[in-house]
Amino acid sequence: MSIPNIAGDAVLKASDPVPEGSLLVHGIDYSKPESRNARASDIIEGMRTMGCQASSLAEACDIIEEMRSWRGKHIDELEEHERKGQFDENGYQKTTIFMGYTSNLISSGLRDTLRFLAENKMIDAIVSTAGGIEEDIIKCLAPTFMSEFSAPGKELREKGMNRIGNMVVPNDNYCKFEEWMVPLLDIMLKEQNEFIEKNGKESFNAGTPFWTPSKFIDRLGKEINDKTSVLYWCHKNKIPVFCPALTDGSIGDMLFFHTFKSSPEQIRLDIVEDIRKINSMSMNAYRAGMLILGGGLIKHHIANACLMRNGADYAVYINTGQEFDASDAGARPDEAVSWGKIKAEAKSVKVYSDVTLVFPLIVAATFAKK
Amino acid sequence: MSIPNIAGDAVLKASDPVPEGSLLVHGIDYSKPESRNARASDIIEGMRTMGCQASSLAEACDIIEEMRSWRGKHIDELEEHERKGQFDENGYQKTTIFMGYTSNLISSGLRDTLRFLAENKMIDAIVSTAGGIEEDIIKCLAPTFMSEFSAPGKELREKGMNRIGNMVVPNDNYCKFEEWMVPLLDIMLKEQNEFIEKNGKESFNAGTPFWTPSKFIDRLGKEINDKTSVLYWCHKNKIPVFCPALTDGSIGDMLFFHTFKSSPEQIRLDIVEDIRKINSMSMNAYRAGMLILGGGLIKHHIANACLMRNGADYAVYINTGQEFDASDAGARPDEAVSWGKIKAEAKSVKVYSDVTLVFPLIVAATFAKK
Amino acid sequence: MSIPNIAGDAVLKASDPVPEGSLLVHGIDYSKPESRNARASDIIEGMRTMGCQASSLAEACDIIEEMRSWRGKHIDELEEHERKGQFDENGYQKTTIFMGYTSNLISSGLRDTLRFLAENKMIDAIVSTAGGIEEDIIKCLAPTFMSEFSAPGKELREKGMNRIGNMVVPNDNYCKFEEWMVPLLDIMLKEQNEFIEKNGKESFNAGTPFWTPSKFIDRLGKEINDKTSVLYWCHKNKIPVFCPALTDGSIGDMLFFHTFKSSPEQIRLDIVEDIRKINSMSMNAYRAGMLILGGGLIKHHIANACLMRNGADYAVYINTGQEFDASDAGARPDEAVSWGKIKAEAKSVKVYSDVTLVFPLIVAATFAKK
Amino acid sequence: MSIPNIAGDAVLKASDPVPEGSLLVHGIDYSKPESRNARASDIIEGMRTMGCQASSLAEACDIIEEMRSWRGKHIDELEEHERKGQFDENGYQKTTIFMGYTSNLISSGLRDTLRFLAENKMIDAIVSTAGGIEEDIIKCLAPTFMSEFSAPGKELREKGMNRIGNMVVPNDNYCKFEEWMVPLLDIMLKEQNEFIEKNGKESFNAGTPFWTPSKFIDRLGKEINDKTSVLYWCHKNKIPVFCPALTDGSIGDMLFFHTFKSSPEQIRLDIVEDIRKINSMSMNAYRAGMLILGGGLIKHHIANACLMRNGADYAVYINTGQEFDASDAGARPDEAVSWGKIKAEAKSVKVYSDVTLVFPLIVAATFAKK
Repeated sequence: MSIPNIAGDAVLKASDPVPEGSLLVHGIDYSKPESRNARASDIIEGMRTMGCQASSLAEACDIIEEMRSWRGKHIDELEEHERKGQFDENGYQKTTIFMGYTSNLISSGLRDTLRFLAENKMIDAIVSTAGGIEEDIIKCLAPTFMSEFSAPGKELREKGMNRIGNMVVPNDNYCKFEEWMVPLLDIMLKEQNEFIEKNGKESFNAGTPFWTPSKFIDRLGKEINDKTSVLYWCHKNKIPVFCPALTDGSIGDMLFFHTFKSSPEQIRLDIVEDIRKINSMSMNAYRAGMLILGGGLIKHHIANACLMRNGADYAVYINTGQEFDASDAGARPDEAVSWGKIKAEAKSVKVYSDVTLVFPLIVAATFAKK
Repeated sequence: MSIPNIAGDAVLKASDPVPEGSLLVHGIDYSKPESRNARASDIIEGMRTMGCQASSLAEACDIIEEMRSWRGKHIDELEEHERKGQFDENGYQKTTIFMGYTSNLISSGLRDTLRFLAENKMIDAIVSTAGGIEEDIIKCLAPTFMSEFSAPGKELREKGMNRIGNMVVPNDNYCKFEEWMVPLLDIMLKEQNEFIEKNGKESFNAGTPFWTPSKFIDRLGKEINDKTSVLYWCHKNKIPVFCPALTDGSIGDMLFFHTFKSSPEQIRLDIVEDIRKINSMSMNAYRAGMLILGGGLIKHHIANACLMRNGADYAVYINTGQEFDASDAGARPDEAVSWGKIKAEAKSVKVYSDVTLVFPLIVAATFAKK
Repeated sequence: MSIPNIAGDAVLKASDPVPEGSLLVHGIDYSKPESRNARASDIIEGMRTMGCQASSLAEACDIIEEMRSWRGKHIDELEEHERKGQFDENGYQKTTIFMGYTSNLISSGLRDTLRFLAENKMIDAIVSTAGGIEEDIIKCLAPTFMSEFSAPGKELREKGMNRIGNMVVPNDNYCKFEEWMVPLLDIMLKEQNEFIEKNGKESFNAGTPFWTPSKFIDRLGKEINDKTSVLYWCHKNKIPVFCPALTDGSIGDMLFFHTFKSSPEQIRLDIVEDIRKINSMSMNAYRAGMLILGGGLIKHHIANACLMRNGADYAVYINTGQEFDASDAGARPDEAVSWGKIKAEAKSVKVYSDVTLVFPLIVAATFAKK
Repeated sequence: MSIPNIAGDAVLKASDPVPEGSLLVHGIDYSKPESRNARASDIIEGMRTMGCQASSLAEACDIIEEMRSWRGKHIDELEEHERKGQFDENGYQKTTIFMGYTSNLISSGLRDTLRFLAENKMIDAIVSTAGGIEEDIIKCLAPTFMSEFSAPGKELREKGMNRIGNMVVPNDNYCKFEEWMVPLLDIMLKEQNEFIEKNGKESFNAGTPFWTPSKFIDRLGKEINDKTSVLYWCHKNKIPVFCPALTDGSIGDMLFFHTFKSSPEQIRLDIVEDIRKINSMSMNAYRAGMLILGGGLIKHHIANACLMRNGADYAVYINTGQEFDASDAGARPDEAVSWGKIKAEAKSVKVYSDVTLVFPLIVAATFAKK
């Protein structure tokens, strides 16, 4: 009795030759001494042809290295009106890197990594959510603590401990933040009033020092004056930080409370000027790179800005979102290609991971390699 | 040779009696005729003790029914200063329901369900993202089409087809939107100018008709004047729609373009007045319910508003986020309890699902039961 | 000042005409009376063009209806050797439906739905895991109870309560199972011995009543003799139930204990005969349909059997797995196409969902429509 | 006008003092030179108090180090009947480490890491699925190649390229495997026959060389005789490899085909003896550790074995499963505590990640540190 034909044919179907240049799946060679307590770059090297997400992680490192190292013309070769994007210290055009991150990453110890990038001017613009702004300042006033995902909410509320995943922020930290913010809001309102007094109806015009989220955030960075802060270094290094929904958190609570104190006067935060600012950065960029840590607004906002230049040249997404619910949060880079937010010929990758699991390794092998 | 003690003791450990009132896991009784092509309420009934997510779905329906049916005092029993929250048509206090949804849901056919809720005044406030606003208007101008998750981005871009999950929006729709928006933006700028002309430096004060996202959105709903629109019905029924990051999408693109047309004048959108507005709604509510469809900003924004009243009384989350990355998007209701955003004694549930899979069934068994 | 060209061109890019026959995204029409407390088929109808996962769910229903309703030739038109697969009650060829489900679904109240399918001979073969077998029997001896995902393990262990997600099984249920199993295992060993005595070295040959998982399971279904049991109906209706890793759970514990009691004799369970049995069913099927509820072994096992016929004709996957880790559990149907496990021209869909959220609705609109 | 009381009290609620010894969330100190292209152990050190999944990853490393380094009594201090579990090279009791991995990991380049662990006897037993066995052998015959998650199934099938996530295996590899397997199956059947001839009806008894999955796998490892193979080293180092559903893949196909060739004789694979073998290993272990890479059967099988000793002492889970569907695949360690599969006082952690993203780093910082 022989093997049934249909099964035999299906199972033992011959295959075409593998195309030239196909990469073999293989991993780390532990016979090499450098595989012992390996360095970041050696681990990444071993992941490059590992398949699954490991190879995507290695690809993310490659794209980051390429967006970082790209250089165009020297500024002296450019016409006056062409001198708009980012240049390196020697005057050569370089990629404008837009980095976005969600609030939880500033709450986490990854804040130190994000600060390292800002301190060393390794990124050119930041987009975050309200929590991603205020937690950076609050951490200069009082610390966040380790906890458990399963810590029960009722007990925590009784103790005034606000849980963020497996971390807690004592509510006193927000009280300290309020004490720090109120005098500053008084001053900011005073400046707004002086400015209106001086400019009258032109106060609404473009280019006026009308408060916007990015100006507000820059001021926070200046006032906190603390080298552990991401925003401090952004202020120092003139890295704009965008947050269109800046009121969506503790800063919003403080602004809300301040409206009662200042009534009928009110600080105003305009979001139109900021969309002009980020879109202009994108249009002026010689090359644009997206480094997206997390999903939601921060991801869409950077992608939307890159549409203004007909697409980013590089894109690295790292998040836990899935595409099946058709949310932008979970969309693959290829969806952004359809919109013109990433160029069809751009290098892009998505790493499906909690950011804290992989970004320390990525940074060690790229931004902090030397 | 007998069973080894350690294994036997571990495997055959006796159990305590099950507590009185413990619910047996069981499912649908197909011997009943109503199980044939069953109605929504019968399906939900069968899911109540099914375990896994089915029982969470049934619990979500119970909470929705409870938040909808709660009634407090009659308005005539209240002092003047107490008459602030929502009342039913007979003058009795009822729950203020905050509904949040992400952009993809308006892109999807669930928009018809969301409109049904707005048309029938079944919810009291909405929070959405920019796409959740503009796609509602754009759909009045031209349709969205079915596609595939795997449709390749490069080809789509060449054809001008923007992919949203397994749907596409022709880029012409955005061109039509631009044509519709520009004259409206001209008028809105004119109104802004007239208002400044009239009010001078008081233009910045509280209570002035300064443009805010919620006012801008209300105006869109009025102007579109189309019964298929969620925003039209929100305008009609005075349901405020909040969107702190209104510039994060096509409306932002239009506002950006308009700054060039109107230069140096500029429409301004203030987000401080809106945070005051939503927080005040929360404080004034007799009871507050959260109905969160999706994650990210819309989830946090409603929860944060509910902190102003020391917690919502009801909370239903439906989304695909997971807590393990410590993002707010994936956080369980119990995390919000720790912050005082949901009351410790509130009824709350999270259904882990794409919203479109379950919300049609939920609505059929609750809001649209009769 | 005009809109910057690059941005205008990118944002306002014209689109090609939408292809003829493209489906508009739209949802439920609540003006129709049948949208009130809607029936399953009306809800599914409204989901068909909803996009996101809703349209995938409707597609799953369409595929199920098609696989159920397909009819081929009459048995009288067939040669003797062609009369191998499934026939309907009138003698026409029909699809062989392989249904797989994971253990948690039998623990849940969905068991009643699965039993309904077996009782009415709506499926032709089942593949499950060990828990999916034994929990069906155990539930005939004592019930499972509702619990919480967050119930703490240590306290539960002290009370002898075994948690399965948001359900618990008292450990006494396993003690009862042991009491029920031991005499049966004694008999089964006796039968094995008698058979060897009679057949000698031919005992190992094909076609002998050597114990295999599917025979063992059939015997359980016969012995339990309880109409609430899936396995009872599978026995009655001659629906084979496969479980290659039958020892991976409580039955394994009982068999393990029994080896001490029966030493040196030992019940043997052969898995080679069962792979021959399921593969033969696949080869003999006129058409083959896959209905996969969950991931892991049950998914792969059915797909692998369908390779023996060069691919299934229909495939519906419902599970929460994601493809990014390259696991078979999370693989889309298209991966199985590359292997020849699903035909390239087959109708297939994956619904990304917990099964209990959607399968009651699916069954109400398909198997239990009439 | 002052801040509304209810909001102020809720937002500015005072908090209790943080408990003594609470850990501050902080991250990597980039001022240290070792943060440049950092070594695995330094990266892990920086992740320990990072929160989110980073701290879980560091905890996984700590638990692995502890399970590896634990030592009990010297063998000379033990009675004869106590000398059953694992000992180190100096004769001291050590932890019995059960490692489970899914098929995709052997397909990926992580195979080299898994082999490293087997080669160096760093683990004591393995549980895998059928693919996790056969792909190891097949890779000795021909390589697997890198591909894309989006490679279309139909084209791949036409070319005979079987996709596994973002990798492909040419179907010729399976043809080569068949050529390698058939003569071996002939021999194995011959051995079975000789054994029955010799032992008669006692062939079914305990302790006979009846074929079981673990014996079959050991033979594969011996025959392949290739130092790149995990199974080769398991054979060399007497590390048992369990796979209760060994027929669920290409080996099953070969065994199925072989039944036609050998008819009416048939190789038999018994799974009862293997459950006795793994359960006995668990009972004999002085301490037991679980290292679970992936979900499904391999996870449950190890946990179930550890129930036989009333719980593992250490457990590290790394997978992408979620608990919300009540599947064992996604269950947290605490669910296993309720069953007595992990001791209540055991150290356990789950890392929510694709294994290939984190296991290279984990191994570099633990097993391959020196």
